[in-house]
Amino acid sequence: MRHFDELLEELRNKLLDMSAMVQTAIRESVSSLELSDESRAQSVLQGESDVNRMELDVDQLVTSLLALEQPVAGDLRFITAAGKINNNLERIGDLAVNIAERSESLIQHPHVAVRTDIAKLAEMAEAMVRMALDAFIRKDADDARAVLVSERAINDLRDVIFNDLIQQMKKDPKSVQACVDLMFAARNLERIADHATNIAEAVVFMVDGIDLRHHHVPVDV
Amino acid sequence: MRHFDELLEELRNKLLDMSAMVQTAIRESVSSLELSDESRAQSVLQGESDVNRMELDVDQLVTSLLALEQPVAGDLRFITAAGKINNNLERIGDLAVNIAERSESLIQHPHVAVRTDIAKLAEMAEAMVRMALDAFIRKDADDARAVLVSERAINDLRDVIFNDLIQQMKKDPKSVQACVDLMFAARNLERIADHATNIAEAVVFMVDGIDLRHHHVPVDV
Repeated sequence: MRHFDELLEELRNKLLDMSAMVQTAIRESVSSLELSDESRAQSVLQGESDVNRMELDVDQLVTSLLALEQPVAGDLRFITAAGKINNNLERIGDLAVNIAERSESLIQHPHVAVRTDIAKLAEMAEAMVRMALDAFIRKDADDARAVLVSERAINDLRDVIFNDLIQQMKKDPKSVQACVDLMFAARNLERIADHATNIAEAVVFMVDGIDLRHHHVPVDV
Repeated sequence: MRHFDELLEELRNKLLDMSAMVQTAIRESVSSLELSDESRAQSVLQGESDVNRMELDVDQLVTSLLALEQPVAGDLRFITAAGKINNNLERIGDLAVNIAERSESLIQHPHVAVRTDIAKLAEMAEAMVRMALDAFIRKDADDARAVLVSERAINDLRDVIFNDLIQQMKKDPKSVQACVDLMFAARNLERIADHATNIAEAVVFMVDGIDLRHHHVPVDV
């Protein structure tokens, strides 16, 4: 079983590399947005193909492990969770690319001062991704469950940001394009948080064998 | 192997049921949007939990087949493709729910006449989903590949719709909320098309064993 354990270790390491790449992409795309820094947006766009290549690598490794090694029980759950986490990380990478593109559009358009809580939303989404990946590394289902409670706060903040932007567009037609860009950036951050939730659910399934999807205890009534 | 074949057949049948449910949800949500018909939006919202339950069922079946039956080669590819198609169908169901919610918001807001090509975008996205699922049923990789070429046309039409809506918002501040709703509805349709692409890629992988993700031949230069 030495070969099998080595492949599992390789799978774990690749996912860690991919996690690091994707977290950098989020940070750079958000900084680009906040600082109107085009070079950061460019670096995110250039990194996209690396993330895509990594996704295919990991998926191939997952398929090989399933096909050649016919794992059972805990190993099977680890491998299927790794496959799901891999796909979610790739989607997070895509969303960081979308944010970088919105940042580029914002830089090109005449500057319009728009105050929103996007920085706060970005911080929350980044924290959720970090917590979900830490929970995966430490195989800690409680930490993974802790990620799930943030969903409500993310949605509330998104509503506040959307309302602010809609009011702004009504008041100042010149700000419409900038507000649309910020709205989609906020939407992308919300979806990054959704993928962090998916990763956390995959970790709970991996550790406890419980499928939490569509079964969150609602925070409100 | 009788038991195994029966489980495979059950997997296929559940996916077909889920496909039908999700296609109905798209059609109803788009009709609700086009006809300002709240009852259709409601029926989509009520159907969401059925789609979610079905996703869990199918995923459990996929995991059992992988764990208990240790399939190889073609069967393994069918089962992993079924898992991916399942997750994409559930996401399409979610996106139909989002469209239904945008429709409800549009109905609540004072009527603003906004002309866009959303009906056309909806038709294209629906056709892609239908073609991808037909290709899966018939295990036809060529038909699956035919789905992939629509991506460019979808993106072009989305750009036209977004531009129309942005111009409209600049011209008429009263239309902002309605235009934002339509913008997100269009974005949801675009993402439904993305999921149809994912399903088509899973079919190509299932039939030919070739992973097309991130390797589309670009239509433009």
